[in-house]
Amino acid sequence: MCSTALRGLSSVASGLVRRQSAWPLHLHVRNAITLRRDFCARANAAHALDDASSEKLGSASPWATDGWGDSVEIIEQTMPDAHRALLSNASVAIPTSSAEAGELPAVSDILGAYEAQLQRRTARHLGYPYNLDYQNRELDRFMRYSINNLGDPFVPSNYGVHSRQFEVAVVDFFARLWRADPNDYWGYVTTCGTEGNLYGMLLARETLPDGIVYTSSETHYSVFKAAHYYRQEVEVIPTLFNGQIDYDALATALRRNRGKPAILNVNIGTTVKGAVDDLDRILRTLSMTGYEREDYYVHCDGALFAMMMPFVEYAPELSFQRPIDSITVSGHKMLGCPMPCGIALTRRSHVRKIERRIDYLNSVDTTIMGSRNGHAALHMWHSLRTKGLEGIKAEVASCLKTAVYLRDSLSAEGITCQLNDLSSTVILERPADERFVKRWQLACEEDIAHVVVMPNVTTKKVDIFVAELVAMTKQHGRTAPRRENSPLTLLSSKAWGAHRAGHA
Amino acid sequence: MCSTALRGLSSVASGLVRRQSAWPLHLHVRNAITLRRDFCARANAAHALDDASSEKLGSASPWATDGWGDSVEIIEQTMPDAHRALLSNASVAIPTSSAEAGELPAVSDILGAYEAQLQRRTARHLGYPYNLDYQNRELDRFMRYSINNLGDPFVPSNYGVHSRQFEVAVVDFFARLWRADPNDYWGYVTTCGTEGNLYGMLLARETLPDGIVYTSSETHYSVFKAAHYYRQEVEVIPTLFNGQIDYDALATALRRNRGKPAILNVNIGTTVKGAVDDLDRILRTLSMTGYEREDYYVHCDGALFAMMMPFVEYAPELSFQRPIDSITVSGHKMLGCPMPCGIALTRRSHVRKIERRIDYLNSVDTTIMGSRNGHAALHMWHSLRTKGLEGIKAEVASCLKTAVYLRDSLSAEGITCQLNDLSSTVILERPADERFVKRWQLACEEDIAHVVVMPNVTTKKVDIFVAELVAMTKQHGRTAPRRENSPLTLLSSKAWGAHRAGHA
Repeated sequence: MCSTALRGLSSVASGLVRRQSAWPLHLHVRNAITLRRDFCARANAAHALDDASSEKLGSASPWATDGWGDSVEIIEQTMPDAHRALLSNASVAIPTSSAEAGELPAVSDILGAYEAQLQRRTARHLGYPYNLDYQNRELDRFMRYSINNLGDPFVPSNYGVHSRQFEVAVVDFFARLWRADPNDYWGYVTTCGTEGNLYGMLLARETLPDGIVYTSSETHYSVFKAAHYYRQEVEVIPTLFNGQIDYDALATALRRNRGKPAILNVNIGTTVKGAVDDLDRILRTLSMTGYEREDYYVHCDGALFAMMMPFVEYAPELSFQRPIDSITVSGHKMLGCPMPCGIALTRRSHVRKIERRIDYLNSVDTTIMGSRNGHAALHMWHSLRTKGLEGIKAEVASCLKTAVYLRDSLSAEGITCQLNDLSSTVILERPADERFVKRWQLACEEDIAHVVVMPNVTTKKVDIFVAELVAMTKQHGRTAPRRENSPLTLLSSKAWGAHRAGHA
Repeated sequence: MCSTALRGLSSVASGLVRRQSAWPLHLHVRNAITLRRDFCARANAAHALDDASSEKLGSASPWATDGWGDSVEIIEQTMPDAHRALLSNASVAIPTSSAEAGELPAVSDILGAYEAQLQRRTARHLGYPYNLDYQNRELDRFMRYSINNLGDPFVPSNYGVHSRQFEVAVVDFFARLWRADPNDYWGYVTTCGTEGNLYGMLLARETLPDGIVYTSSETHYSVFKAAHYYRQEVEVIPTLFNGQIDYDALATALRRNRGKPAILNVNIGTTVKGAVDDLDRILRTLSMTGYEREDYYVHCDGALFAMMMPFVEYAPELSFQRPIDSITVSGHKMLGCPMPCGIALTRRSHVRKIERRIDYLNSVDTTIMGSRNGHAALHMWHSLRTKGLEGIKAEVASCLKTAVYLRDSLSAEGITCQLNDLSSTVILERPADERFVKRWQLACEEDIAHVVVMPNVTTKKVDIFVAELVAMTKQHGRTAPRRENSPLTLLSSKAWGAHRAGHA
């Protein structure tokens, strides 16, 4: 297979030369072969891991590796001009005449250049909460099939090319993880975290049509989007320095609006700072401000961390044994998946409010999307089943430890940074050079940036990153706080404890 | 590769025997090998087509074939009990302890049984508008990457592992197909047809917040769902016998509500009957009832047929040169794609109404889902680029011809059926035996069923289907119309013309 791949790549190279002779062939081929070696090495990753594990911190699971390269070699590579040309809008255009078609490079050349670029970008990614490493090769063959989970996961439809049994297994797993009553849960595999939040907010509105949405200002934009779509009233609650909702401000708002039901969005890890809202304190606040169970709906946006928290020792419990109504989590984040996906879990009684019989499907419409990607369910299933609880637990532990390692490394270099409790998201001052931000694909907000430590982020890669950041800072200086109370100003707050560094 | 596959399959077989010795091994292995042969044959489908093409009607494109088997052999196969056991909820459950894990069959055994079942179900599918055959093998390797088109297709984000350039190429193609002004269109690759309709209806509401939604009673359920989500008022317009909107009833409703803006959903092929609403007549109706351009928004739900109509000779034109606002189409239907997907296309000014800058993405939020499946865009691109306009045109012609062949074959057997103009959806009396409906995965509504002729439906498969249907009818009888004006009653209407058959 690897030799085939190499052959494919050299044909790409020769194709390129045919088109762009100015570009030296030997360089391209060497580049291509290096990348391919890395690619082929990955195919045997499971066996090769032993060699690499000595460089890793903690007791990583067999998957807690960066198969995509933590070597300087791959991280240093930039896109050759010939690849840039192959991936330009002009090259990938879809022709509408044979004259147009004749001018375009071959599909296989474009795909070769594209794959090389994906490898480079995958190797040098730190900013988004995506686990970019997974062993899913045995699922490739299923790309021959149009797997579509039409309708409801629990109600068979007439369309037979589905992965409903795998979807149900995944839903059942999360129901147990979050301690749902075996007789009172329902859920499905979503397209992404946004769909999960759109779904939770929809059920909330159907449950409490006049409910006011309460959520913190650091909430993911999809929650605000949902409220706008559904024409719901929203109370935006300010946050504490670390990104958690301001509980006292929440209490004040709840008291002020006591005549109307409340829809609470609880962030189990905010997008930028990884701050976990204290669910129990929010439930106590509801109770103390006079809201009865039937007056509120609680949705937990667990985008990244709802998958991690159950595996952290001595962490607060995220559980349907508490008076909550829905939890959502992404599948492509902690677990890793080639396509975005997620899980929405709720109580059965809520789903009945939106359920509609669709004769045409011979099923019921209970999800947002009628046609649903069956591959996502299959990939999540495969990942959960092959890793097992122990594998995921080891990955979570490795992420949290590597995040501490990153924070400490940055602090030691005098760079302002913080790490929330229960989080693998290291927040730091925004690097002054935007090219550096793009190079490492950091996510930024105003004057801060963050690195989300996922299972594929090794300490070796952290070392390369920190060294580059220090070098860049020497050359370009540092970002000053942009305004009073800017995220960077808050990052230096003494409230974070002893690890406040830089700007000191 | 095929020998590897065979080895994989025999290990499945031996795994099964280990677990379920009552089941005769030799039968299983033979079964598995037959299926695998079919699978391997598919790998060389492009070369093998010549042999089969003599059995096909019309000038099919090289893809207009059923690689999934139109032989009685594969169609006859039913799921062996051992496979049923491997695919049960108990077998695919995700264990939460090592004791539980020890009780479960191996992942590779489950996947082997699953693939065999997908092959059987793919070979015996006629009811949903999905082209189940596509040559996408060279894209398998991209399943190693988390391809996510965060944010807007036209605005780069900080996340580098994307397929944005392919998405833009696909959007550009549809913009040309539907004659959008090069300076005034915007679009994206959606998750499915439902997302496209949710999107069109959202833009409509943002354009005309008090607009009333007008759509026919035979509209896809996602349009009604959108109106419910967005808290929009809806006027459900009755249909003509063939499934088109009742234009006079529409005019009456428009006149009655003249004080309020109008949001029109136009069906470019209804779900059940494939009826194409007459767009020009609807536009004339708007004009004649006194609606100015700024008083209405027109969304065209082109789920299946918006991809076919531009390739049909002498068909009405679906074009942004007319006063329309959005068109959506599915990617997994006519084109074929392993996962559901689609295209939403609109005018740029509409998108600006919902656009929101998201610092965190370094892009703008303009779509419904923030995280979007980059593989879908890549697959659509690959399909369009490798087939080309001529390839698609040949497929469309083949579908329309084969649909006529199916209708004529059914009529000749005295079975009530109809085929709308501009459609490859053959509507027929609901088969009396539900097992037959399930076996062929027919979509039903009340007392009718339909077959959607897609490029993978060959005349040979049609012959097998008709023969089975006739045999089944002899045994189980026929479905009588369930009520006055039921869909089956309307199917016998003289208004359809000469091809009215059965119940005569």
